[in-house]
Amino acid sequence: MRPQDIIRKKRDREQLLPAEINFFVDGVTHGQIADYQTSALLMAIYLNGMNEAEQQSLTEAMLQSGSILDFSGIAKPKVDKHSTGGVGDKTSLVIAPLVAACGVCVPMISGRGLGHTGGTLDKLESIPGYRVSLSASEFQNVLEQVGYAMAGQTAELAPADKKMYALRDATATVEAIPLIVASIISKKGAAGLEAMVIDVKVGSGAFMREEERARTLAQALVKTGNSCGIRTRALLTDMNQPLGCAVGNSIEVKECIEILRGEFAPAAQPVFDLSLELSAQMLVLAHVDDSLDEARQRLQRALESGEALERFRQNVAAQGGDPRVCDDPRGVLPLVSESFIVESRRPGYITAVETSEIGHAIAALGGGRVRIDDKIDATVGYISEIKIGDQVTAGQTLGMVYSRDESRARETVSRIQAAYQVGDEFKRDLPTLVKEVVE
Amino acid sequence: MRPQDIIRKKRDREQLLPAEINFFVDGVTHGQIADYQTSALLMAIYLNGMNEAEQQSLTEAMLQSGSILDFSGIAKPKVDKHSTGGVGDKTSLVIAPLVAACGVCVPMISGRGLGHTGGTLDKLESIPGYRVSLSASEFQNVLEQVGYAMAGQTAELAPADKKMYALRDATATVEAIPLIVASIISKKGAAGLEAMVIDVKVGSGAFMREEERARTLAQALVKTGNSCGIRTRALLTDMNQPLGCAVGNSIEVKECIEILRGEFAPAAQPVFDLSLELSAQMLVLAHVDDSLDEARQRLQRALESGEALERFRQNVAAQGGDPRVCDDPRGVLPLVSESFIVESRRPGYITAVETSEIGHAIAALGGGRVRIDDKIDATVGYISEIKIGDQVTAGQTLGMVYSRDESRARETVSRIQAAYQVGDEFKRDLPTLVKEVVE
Repeated sequence: MRPQDIIRKKRDREQLLPAEINFFVDGVTHGQIADYQTSALLMAIYLNGMNEAEQQSLTEAMLQSGSILDFSGIAKPKVDKHSTGGVGDKTSLVIAPLVAACGVCVPMISGRGLGHTGGTLDKLESIPGYRVSLSASEFQNVLEQVGYAMAGQTAELAPADKKMYALRDATATVEAIPLIVASIISKKGAAGLEAMVIDVKVGSGAFMREEERARTLAQALVKTGNSCGIRTRALLTDMNQPLGCAVGNSIEVKECIEILRGEFAPAAQPVFDLSLELSAQMLVLAHVDDSLDEARQRLQRALESGEALERFRQNVAAQGGDPRVCDDPRGVLPLVSESFIVESRRPGYITAVETSEIGHAIAALGGGRVRIDDKIDATVGYISEIKIGDQVTAGQTLGMVYSRDESRARETVSRIQAAYQVGDEFKRDLPTLVKEVVE
Repeated sequence: MRPQDIIRKKRDREQLLPAEINFFVDGVTHGQIADYQTSALLMAIYLNGMNEAEQQSLTEAMLQSGSILDFSGIAKPKVDKHSTGGVGDKTSLVIAPLVAACGVCVPMISGRGLGHTGGTLDKLESIPGYRVSLSASEFQNVLEQVGYAMAGQTAELAPADKKMYALRDATATVEAIPLIVASIISKKGAAGLEAMVIDVKVGSGAFMREEERARTLAQALVKTGNSCGIRTRALLTDMNQPLGCAVGNSIEVKECIEILRGEFAPAAQPVFDLSLELSAQMLVLAHVDDSLDEARQRLQRALESGEALERFRQNVAAQGGDPRVCDDPRGVLPLVSESFIVESRRPGYITAVETSEIGHAIAALGGGRVRIDDKIDATVGYISEIKIGDQVTAGQTLGMVYSRDESRARETVSRIQAAYQVGDEFKRDLPTLVKEVVE
């Protein structure tokens, strides 16, 4: 078998056989196939797609390319949530302790922010002392003690995905559905999950801007996840504006703690609602509850009793962070008081937000990575106060930019201001938070 | 400018700007763009194509990527012929001396055989002592003395093409028309040509099997060549059976010398005819003659007077080879007498020949390269005696395989035997040698 013959088949839209896909993934994993051959195949897959059988083989091969975590010693259902990425998308920090409080084991392997989207690991690291690099045994210990653990992908889990992802980023082949599906499911499968809920973001701040394409992705994720033995559901959710208020690292953690404490701003309601919805789906998939209604009630009780916040506290302590963050986020998190108002340039109704531009602006201010080795500044961020459909006057505050660097903050204010579209007429079809459940 | 943004544009079928193409070609030439990014772009070009403006920019950028030969000191028109590659395609060895004898300067940069096609340089090297690696000044000296010189592409000429070609070979992106056009024209332009004739082969032994695709290639070559300031014509010629009799290295040189001597087998007539036709086109493009008829007459005279053979002799001597090869090819060339008959398996008419299979069989016998660093055995080859349309009896000789290795020769005989289709009915539409002139 020669790599170029496999590339040629995909180039010519012929179906790749499982043995050919295995040969390629194995060669990528062990460095026997040159990066330039891998990237040519990735582009051919991007442009010519993969059918179900190929998708399945690719995912299985990547899943099997490294070690597979085994939590069979933990007598709880293992369920996780994954998001395709958005702006202000912070539900993981609410969902993991909340679902853990309901008796589910959540081994959450998370990512870093790149491009316009934030990353759970970056957010967590804004808690002083919090460690996201855990050894396999540390991860398991935290999981056993707390019910959930948060860590980055290790070199042992789905190494083929790690290599291919780096190449995809450099060769404009990130957005291919078969590659996204194989990447997500292989990592989740290697983390030893029984079930998972995938939050497929759609809109101006998501990788998928069109609902049709997001739906295709959601369907492929569900089908492939189930075929790999992971009970999988996907929710199509709105990403046409930042989720909740905060976009940034420390300020997103603060918003999550406020939700866990039941003391949050009205504009943060969508974070609460979406976290509850995704968590309810997880409890049903975990067979903890038979219906979503029962699950929602159980989750409400875990929030109101303080049990969810308590799990969060335990996790922070177990992963080396300062647990006082739960009681006094303002005192513990690195926050800055210097703020700059983003004003509406004209009166009218907010009709649209170029959400990825807000993500890029905050990343450029230091809140994210423009290049993969950029250092994150946990203090900077944006708090949005106004949503699509709201009426504004000229000069009314749309939100606040936080940064100690005044000149960069002013640039950020301009970029974010330009991201809001203000029209004369009220927008009738406001975005629905959860658009569809794919199962 | 980032390579991945250029890749993304081509991936999304947007037109690349000249500055973007220059940036990429420059980065490839100087190693600033990673091979895996180049190969992703090559695959995107393969699958999404290029329009005329992009084709032009790519070719110019590759042409300008290295040094450009300057033969302005030679007061003759500089014209070359290029073939897209075939089996038994040996016309360069006849055309160069023949056209040089008519007052044209032919700086011929040739290639090696790879895959099922032979290469002019490999054929020439079967002449004892002949050197195809010439320095720029040696090349110019031979050109001035003899009127033509034959050498391989140096590292200085179109280096971007050299790098891209190696990647294309390893990533199944060789057969893309925009890449073929840019590769050919950039090399020819860097060799300082004023005009060129391109022999676009079509059929079972060519890279382009379908006439429609070959015509598209021919048209793109002519358009791009002319846009780069090289007067260009292309001929679509038949490659549905080996050209002439000999397929191999020494035996092809022998066939060419026989043609230059006017003493050749009837089955070699197509080599004579095609050489004359391509040469006549060169003379007209060189403005040596106004009409093809005049050119043909001039060429006939150069052959009959022995002047063409004399040029060949001078070139062999100037490039270090043994010039006695012209008088006694059998005594000078490494030929073997061990031969094995390829017999027709049944009576009937020859209806088709899987020509690339003959090329592959002779390459596997040692006459070509299966891998790029394989050594060539100049002695082996195949002499075909029967053409499409000929009537044969069962057991009649189709041709002879030459090799000292009996067991490999017998394998070769079987492969070649299977390449001939023998049918019950006479094939009415025999292949025409020159199908079309594109100008």
